[in-house]
Amino acid sequence: MPRYVYLDHAATTPVDPHVWEAMKPYCLNVFGNPSSLHLFGDRADEAVHQAKREILHLLGANQGKVVLTSGGTEANNLALKGVAHMYQQQGRHIVVSAIEHDSVLSACTALEKQGFTISYIPVDSQGKINLYKLEQMLTEHTILVSVMHANNEVGTLQPIDTIGQLIKAKRLKQGTKTPFFHCDAVQTLGKIPFQVEEWGVDLLSFSAHKFYGPKGVGGLYVQRGVRLSPLLHGGGQEYGWRSGTQNVPGLIGTAYALKQSHERQPEDWNRYVKLNTTIREGLQALPGIQLTVPASLALPTHIHFLCQQIEGQALMQELSKKGIAVSTSSACHAHYWAPSHVMLAMGYNDEQAKQAVRISLGRGVTSEDIHYFLQQIKEIIRTFRSSHALS
Amino acid sequence: MPRYVYLDHAATTPVDPHVWEAMKPYCLNVFGNPSSLHLFGDRADEAVHQAKREILHLLGANQGKVVLTSGGTEANNLALKGVAHMYQQQGRHIVVSAIEHDSVLSACTALEKQGFTISYIPVDSQGKINLYKLEQMLTEHTILVSVMHANNEVGTLQPIDTIGQLIKAKRLKQGTKTPFFHCDAVQTLGKIPFQVEEWGVDLLSFSAHKFYGPKGVGGLYVQRGVRLSPLLHGGGQEYGWRSGTQNVPGLIGTAYALKQSHERQPEDWNRYVKLNTTIREGLQALPGIQLTVPASLALPTHIHFLCQQIEGQALMQELSKKGIAVSTSSACHAHYWAPSHVMLAMGYNDEQAKQAVRISLGRGVTSEDIHYFLQQIKEIIRTFRSSHALS
Ligand SMILES: Cc1ncc(COP(=O)(O)O)c(C=O)c1O
Ligand SMILES: Cc1ncc(COP(=O)(O)O)c(C=O)c1O
Repeated sequence: MPRYVYLDHAATTPVDPHVWEAMKPYCLNVFGNPSSLHLFGDRADEAVHQAKREILHLLGANQGKVVLTSGGTEANNLALKGVAHMYQQQGRHIVVSAIEHDSVLSACTALEKQGFTISYIPVDSQGKINLYKLEQMLTEHTILVSVMHANNEVGTLQPIDTIGQLIKAKRLKQGTKTPFFHCDAVQTLGKIPFQVEEWGVDLLSFSAHKFYGPKGVGGLYVQRGVRLSPLLHGGGQEYGWRSGTQNVPGLIGTAYALKQSHERQPEDWNRYVKLNTTIREGLQALPGIQLTVPASLALPTHIHFLCQQIEGQALMQELSKKGIAVSTSSACHAHYWAPSHVMLAMGYNDEQAKQAVRISLGRGVTSEDIHYFLQQIKEIIRTFRSSHALS
Repeated sequence: MPRYVYLDHAATTPVDPHVWEAMKPYCLNVFGNPSSLHLFGDRADEAVHQAKREILHLLGANQGKVVLTSGGTEANNLALKGVAHMYQQQGRHIVVSAIEHDSVLSACTALEKQGFTISYIPVDSQGKINLYKLEQMLTEHTILVSVMHANNEVGTLQPIDTIGQLIKAKRLKQGTKTPFFHCDAVQTLGKIPFQVEEWGVDLLSFSAHKFYGPKGVGGLYVQRGVRLSPLLHGGGQEYGWRSGTQNVPGLIGTAYALKQSHERQPEDWNRYVKLNTTIREGLQALPGIQLTVPASLALPTHIHFLCQQIEGQALMQELSKKGIAVSTSSACHAHYWAPSHVMLAMGYNDEQAKQAVRISLGRGVTSEDIHYFLQQIKEIIRTFRSSHALS
């Protein structure tokens, strides 16, 4: 039997069997439409409220709302476009980091076409945003700042609490309600304990399939006092901000998965740190490998590197033949290849961007898996270098 | 043990246990991200293609695409706004029936604010649209006509194939690509065998939780040659029309549920016709009950009636206490009450609209359930009429 080693947990994770079981009664028995005003609807509606309370609690929020969405992409689109359209009288300026996920950047491009101005915060060679530049970009017309917690490709973490304080201070100084702070936490929720209120986060996106919950469900945390213009119009569900029959089992699964991730967090984190160290040491022993971001700046689940003179795509495909799944740039992409905007923003050139590979760890990964991976990649690189007569 | 009788299948249905089982391997094992270019991604991507082929086949389409959405609301929003924004150079006029679902009508209101003109096709007292008026409304600036297959509140069916031919003829006469024909089939898919190509339907919305599939997933069938402007921007999934990690288990569940509904269709239909007759006869024997739409014009799953001098809301709540779930107007609504736009369009007044009740049948309903329901409603109406001293 071939060995399968999945090292692409930043792209997606399997549903945890307990999460699956937790969803079951809400599919088969408590299946009512929460909007229905009868006993079947009431039970479903109670489950929705209970799950949202749990999520808010795990986010470190005493108030505010959770808006159910179909995933991280919709949550990001809702945050960006929802705030933009609701607060355009206050200003039409938005500030985002240059290395945001496509769902933030493409939403910004759409807003630019509608007359909004977008400023892109530059990052350094390790993917850290320039806080000084961020501060300079803020004007009284800025209605939103969007900075992700950890980058999906390279894993670099941003100082969310510092950014939150900086934006709060700006509001206070101006005496305005805006700018709000939106954080795309799709890569970090379930991996890092959150304190949204303490950190000054006004809107926070998450996606359940990144933390062993179901695909097709996610949410947007919305701080009290922030309002949104809806993207999906209809029956007025989710506070009028997101119409459509609520995905009750999906929400239950999300809350369960988040709670479970929270409980496992310290243990998982330590395990990832160890595996991460092993991988980094193993890779550095290979010829022509360059790690892009040091472990101290990134999520312990992420290892991002370049393999000189070998295309990441080719390396990924060879590994795939051995049963090993890694990723090149963003995996949340449709099937086409363009140089990663993240790497370009970090100062790499097109050729280097082509050589990038991402490993992302998850619960199922063992040290035997890592051993197997290191063996295989070593072998593949050797074959490449000899057959292509590369040094 | 109290008896539970669920007569609100138009609002939502439970997930069929076989559908649930069919989704399981795609949650736990074949869990890859279809956009990932490795073996885990490839398997998921194949499953997506296979499921879409099945759905297209069951819709009666030899070509065209299925765009995965989070349900009927998103599918309707995507159809309306997606066509409007893509084809606005051809014209900014849209024609919809006056009794469309809120997700179509509210999307139209949003488009009106952007400068589009919407014409509303009137209906008669039984909810049938006026075909003559529809034809008169079409101009060379009309880019889209949206008419639902069956109305969710009253169950009235529209002559979709006639409308399809009418629109095709208009295009031919004008020598234009537009108008396109969108049909909201959320209430009929799985209940009526479809032939989208033969019927001349260019876009068709559906939602899995209405036919024993999972909540939070649906789709939009898009005829070859029709293009859309996306609502959700990001990684470019779903032909660039709907970004976000694809909900593979949801899609698998949808395809499975649709196939199952198709297989059961003739048998289920006959059963509904019988139960429907029993209910109609039983209701007509009660004092002050008025059926709004005759069985011959409506889906056999739907019975819609007024109970003179008694509010539908009150009747629903009393039935709920007896374990019986029915609905007043649309159940796909958030928690507030407004007179149903469907009933107003059919010529009823506010007071009558308040008296409306909908029963919607589904697989689990037995003739004992119907017997119990008829007993209870008789009793409740009697109590109401005596205690309120109504005649
Ligand atoms: C940082 C980040 N934001 C947003 C998303 C989009 O989430 P989803 O795929 O659930 O729409 C992803 C991954 O897909 C991501 O990694
Ligand atoms: C006719 C019709 N269209 C659209 C919808 C919306 O579908 P969903 O609730 O899946 O968003 C519904 C019901 O909710 C409906 O009955």
